[in-house]
Amino acid sequence: MRPSQRETHQLRPIEIIRHYTKHAEGSVLVKFGDTHVLCTASVDEKVPGFLRGKNQGWVTAEYGMLPRSTGSRMDREAARGKQSGRTQEIQRLIGRSLRAIIDLEKLGERSIQIDCDVIQADGGTRTASITGAYVALHDAISRLLAQGLISESPLRDSVAAVSVGVYQGTPVLDLDYIEDSDCDTDMNVVMTGSGGYVEIQGTAEGVPFQRADMDRMLDLAAAGIRELTSLQAKALGL
Amino acid sequence: MRPSQRETHQLRPIEIIRHYTKHAEGSVLVKFGDTHVLCTASVDEKVPGFLRGKNQGWVTAEYGMLPRSTGSRMDREAARGKQSGRTQEIQRLIGRSLRAIIDLEKLGERSIQIDCDVIQADGGTRTASITGAYVALHDAISRLLAQGLISESPLRDSVAAVSVGVYQGTPVLDLDYIEDSDCDTDMNVVMTGSGGYVEIQGTAEGVPFQRADMDRMLDLAAAGIRELTSLQAKALGL
Amino acid sequence: MRPSQRETHQLRPIEIIRHYTKHAEGSVLVKFGDTHVLCTASVDEKVPGFLRGKNQGWVTAEYGMLPRSTGSRMDREAARGKQSGRTQEIQRLIGRSLRAIIDLEKLGERSIQIDCDVIQADGGTRTASITGAYVALHDAISRLLAQGLISESPLRDSVAAVSVGVYQGTPVLDLDYIEDSDCDTDMNVVMTGSGGYVEIQGTAEGVPFQRADMDRMLDLAAAGIRELTSLQAKALGL
Amino acid sequence: MRPSQRETHQLRPIEIIRHYTKHAEGSVLVKFGDTHVLCTASVDEKVPGFLRGKNQGWVTAEYGMLPRSTGSRMDREAARGKQSGRTQEIQRLIGRSLRAIIDLEKLGERSIQIDCDVIQADGGTRTASITGAYVALHDAISRLLAQGLISESPLRDSVAAVSVGVYQGTPVLDLDYIEDSDCDTDMNVVMTGSGGYVEIQGTAEGVPFQRADMDRMLDLAAAGIRELTSLQAKALGL
Amino acid sequence: MRPSQRETHQLRPIEIIRHYTKHAEGSVLVKFGDTHVLCTASVDEKVPGFLRGKNQGWVTAEYGMLPRSTGSRMDREAARGKQSGRTQEIQRLIGRSLRAIIDLEKLGERSIQIDCDVIQADGGTRTASITGAYVALHDAISRLLAQGLISESPLRDSVAAVSVGVYQGTPVLDLDYIEDSDCDTDMNVVMTGSGGYVEIQGTAEGVPFQRADMDRMLDLAAAGIRELTSLQAKALGL
Amino acid sequence: MRPSQRETHQLRPIEIIRHYTKHAEGSVLVKFGDTHVLCTASVDEKVPGFLRGKNQGWVTAEYGMLPRSTGSRMDREAARGKQSGRTQEIQRLIGRSLRAIIDLEKLGERSIQIDCDVIQADGGTRTASITGAYVALHDAISRLLAQGLISESPLRDSVAAVSVGVYQGTPVLDLDYIEDSDCDTDMNVVMTGSGGYVEIQGTAEGVPFQRADMDRMLDLAAAGIRELTSLQAKALGL
Repeated sequence: MRPSQRETHQLRPIEIIRHYTKHAEGSVLVKFGDTHVLCTASVDEKVPGFLRGKNQGWVTAEYGMLPRSTGSRMDREAARGKQSGRTQEIQRLIGRSLRAIIDLEKLGERSIQIDCDVIQADGGTRTASITGAYVALHDAISRLLAQGLISESPLRDSVAAVSVGVYQGTPVLDLDYIEDSDCDTDMNVVMTGSGGYVEIQGTAEGVPFQRADMDRMLDLAAAGIRELTSLQAKALGL
Repeated sequence: MRPSQRETHQLRPIEIIRHYTKHAEGSVLVKFGDTHVLCTASVDEKVPGFLRGKNQGWVTAEYGMLPRSTGSRMDREAARGKQSGRTQEIQRLIGRSLRAIIDLEKLGERSIQIDCDVIQADGGTRTASITGAYVALHDAISRLLAQGLISESPLRDSVAAVSVGVYQGTPVLDLDYIEDSDCDTDMNVVMTGSGGYVEIQGTAEGVPFQRADMDRMLDLAAAGIRELTSLQAKALGL
Repeated sequence: MRPSQRETHQLRPIEIIRHYTKHAEGSVLVKFGDTHVLCTASVDEKVPGFLRGKNQGWVTAEYGMLPRSTGSRMDREAARGKQSGRTQEIQRLIGRSLRAIIDLEKLGERSIQIDCDVIQADGGTRTASITGAYVALHDAISRLLAQGLISESPLRDSVAAVSVGVYQGTPVLDLDYIEDSDCDTDMNVVMTGSGGYVEIQGTAEGVPFQRADMDRMLDLAAAGIRELTSLQAKALGL
Repeated sequence: MRPSQRETHQLRPIEIIRHYTKHAEGSVLVKFGDTHVLCTASVDEKVPGFLRGKNQGWVTAEYGMLPRSTGSRMDREAARGKQSGRTQEIQRLIGRSLRAIIDLEKLGERSIQIDCDVIQADGGTRTASITGAYVALHDAISRLLAQGLISESPLRDSVAAVSVGVYQGTPVLDLDYIEDSDCDTDMNVVMTGSGGYVEIQGTAEGVPFQRADMDRMLDLAAAGIRELTSLQAKALGL
Repeated sequence: MRPSQRETHQLRPIEIIRHYTKHAEGSVLVKFGDTHVLCTASVDEKVPGFLRGKNQGWVTAEYGMLPRSTGSRMDREAARGKQSGRTQEIQRLIGRSLRAIIDLEKLGERSIQIDCDVIQADGGTRTASITGAYVALHDAISRLLAQGLISESPLRDSVAAVSVGVYQGTPVLDLDYIEDSDCDTDMNVVMTGSGGYVEIQGTAEGVPFQRADMDRMLDLAAAGIRELTSLQAKALGL
Repeated sequence: MRPSQRETHQLRPIEIIRHYTKHAEGSVLVKFGDTHVLCTASVDEKVPGFLRGKNQGWVTAEYGMLPRSTGSRMDREAARGKQSGRTQEIQRLIGRSLRAIIDLEKLGERSIQIDCDVIQADGGTRTASITGAYVALHDAISRLLAQGLISESPLRDSVAAVSVGVYQGTPVLDLDYIEDSDCDTDMNVVMTGSGGYVEIQGTAEGVPFQRADMDRMLDLAAAGIRELTSLQAKALGL
């Protein structure tokens, strides 16, 4: 039995709230149970130096946790003067995941900067971030279309993410913090709405895992992603 | 006429929402109109090095803005690798303001760390931060009392803050972003519930101001603080 | 009785020595008693990026203390790799104070960089800095006029600063280090030669202060500034 | 046909040279074709602060590339003043991979610090690093055993790593730089000598990949790891 | 003919002013012509970590230039967030030079921190720094003796420094900025009062120099050091 | 007797291996006994900002030690976030030494970046670096000539470096780590192939040295440099 009483294949209650703050071109509060992440998409009418004059746009992401989003307070990265390795790993993952489903040439010479800030953490902040960021990105793109700045959507697909793991010998979907702290294997899976893999990152925290575990985890993840994809579409009114 | 149609002595709609996130000992979302700040208070059962063995506690504060809390995206301070002078100025002000109303010896050898993170900004983020932080601090103290870790409240008074300024020649209370960007004088006033001054910081942005302006601004601020003090008490059920 | 035997309204002996070092366009050693600050003004024939092409100039300031300007040695900020929050607060204050009395459009597309370096500290380094920096700025402007680089002075007024405080229950002018370490309230007041307020920053170090204290402190400050203004004029031979 | 004329399941020529430098307790130059990495293991008779008194040891890793190990010179991270996100990602991966096969309690209260420095790069530096680091770690452990500092080997298994990818539609093993720059999918697989998964990190660089690709890549990786495991054993004379 | 009209073997006018600021245990303003450096010595009753419990003291130095000590303003190192390579080179040289003439065991478990801050620069700031720092160190030591904290002077000798160079083909002593900017060879020589070499650092800026130049420069330096040694003694009233 | 049984005027076994890695325009592994340094020369078809449009090229150097090149592991500078003063001193020395023998105008508007990375250290890493870097620079220049990018070699001379010192009262050539740790005086001498001095840096580690020691050390150095110059020529096939 999972601590949260969920079935092995059951997601936490998911909420996707659009237009959460007023300034950003896309602003989404995404909740995976008690994990709450604010995802904003900011359009900037220029590209970074390495892309200037290349006739394409750019999508990138930054990630942060509020110092007391967690059970015990973490140091503020701005005060320490650098982002941790974990933070950089996560923001690079979010950026790659979103770039996988967008046609950067169709975006034109502009950037969309995604910010994922964790308001409250209970496991799975990176998968919630990717899932919410896609919706914020979609809103920012819709606005560019509405303003006539682009004539065709550069989005080729949707993208969502979920964690799977082996908890007390059993593969389970969407681990919360209690499960995450005590599982043998933790895997984050990022997939497109049409079912292709974008990223897979699996780590054996304790005992190495076997091919059979892997197969069962991939099955759970695929079903979870289908559910999230449908919740994203619903939130977007598609 | 003010852009927001408010009277010169009128605060924006104020909301003080306690228990906004689940982990912190005090967690308050404070809204001064469209300015929304999450204030958390975290108890740590030790003190910084310079106070060790001195038989007293410590209260300190950090402040940050989410990159897209503002009209155009700001650089993330954690990514730039340092906090701006403005950020440091504000967090020092918040810390001093709270220390002014707490008896650090009665707090015992423990720290309370305040974090004020701006979710959405529309002027007055530092005054909203102080006003909300007091409520979060009160909640953290109540918890220490309930746990029997201290037997008497170290709080000597309450504290709140508000801005006043001279906008198009007229002194006004609680400037929003539009007023703030275009005023001649901007003054932040921090006062205790019993009416003493804790901090006054006034700046002439354009034309230097005269003693008479100063007097009228101080009157407006005192009335605004009385209103905020009463809203804090109400939020705390006092 | 004040530790220095001064009257409550009495400044420390003030000295303003121009042309103290040979390279800078303005170079002033200012002494407020045992507080000695070297203020230089450096002209640079370009403006920072955010002002380029805007047809105006810029005035900014940096502040530092020599490591052993104080009673016990402080860490060197260059060695620690960052400026403290206090340093940034002070240099921002000096910059704003000078910009308040200069017409940046008349200055033309050039910058004047003020450096205030504390050689010896005995309280009031920021007010001495502002008072001396104005004289250095005036010298740099005179030189631009003499060189024909500008045809009309962009200075609209003079500016000076002084501290006031409540020491052992009595409002006093121009606190030295002993008073500063032991006062209830400390307020820095920056005013123009013609008597307008540019900045007011008051902090209750112990007991919050009342409106009556505030009024008496503002009276002391205004008289002190009049005296400093006259000493600045005398030093400049005006 | 692969640019290197290799079969799809063929590793590059692998060399594992022990005792490459004289000071380190373990020092291995590992070559995966033209990718050459120097892996050293340094024993330190203490543990980091967070493990003090916990009766266990620690294994951690750092990674770096010589500035001209690559086709065009990269900035030196020491000169830039920070390690890139990529560097941190890789060194965290190496550390986790080694900790997965060592019993930290049996190691005793000491640390083994792994350094992987890329002398020449041609793709797959992280997989070469892990494969070589295991041999350096083994040498350092053997020395601790020989010195009688530990009585039983804390190593539970061996560990090795290899990349797989989809290059021009075909799954291939151990990508070199040319393939890596032009493949659709790139996956790094870390496995123990007994065939358990320690880490899997797959990224779709272009088109998202399908479950069938995944299965074929995992098969290739497992065979590659078997070969590397046997080369490690041979190098160690086991 | 030298630009300053000096003879080839002639020092600039040298001034050594003791007790220049009031807080430091030793405080010396040293002038080599228009090069003015404030040298302070601060006693700290503890030693750095690497010397704790080793029954010896420590002497170390830091160096800085005020931003406008030079002809055109330099960036402030505290604002840039790091000390330049040149600064570090110079402060290491000053520290080594002073440690060469002090018996660290006789100093006892305490540190003397030297700070050399350039108020005005006209070439030769590092040699002026060493020459002045010795006098400040002597004053700090005298005070320790007077306070009975040590019973015997740990100073074994005096130390001074001077530059020599080849200017337009002719070896000259104590180069000023104009000569320094235009010389072929620049050599800094640090010697004890009794005539031993402590440091020699010679650099060919243009044409490599020959052994004969070297010999003539060493002769000039030795004579210059004799003169500086005598000026130090006179300043100290010895 | 020297610990290594060498004669006082005897170099360690010297090896100069060209084309050590495949990407760099010049790549040399230089061995001075157990000191092994990889020196690469990278051509970049642009110059730093301060030289743009000045019709000349630039040569600069960076230096690093692998963390376990030494007897006990050093912190990785990239992880600590800054280069030590020693590192900066050495890389500035290497750069100046190479610029002394190259005609930067004949090089054209391009840069050659030298990287000296110590693989294994046993004393004398800076002198080995300079000696090896010259050969790498020569290879990079030959390639520019071969490609027709320059028509005439900008090299005016060769350059090499060696250490000399006073070990147990006797002047010796090319100190290894054991001698270096225990010598009274340590001097690094950089000379051109034609016998001119480029840099001399001598430090008395213990007792100050006398002019006679200096003369004997310079003789030893000159002979050592002649030998190194001939080994460089041989390695280059000249």
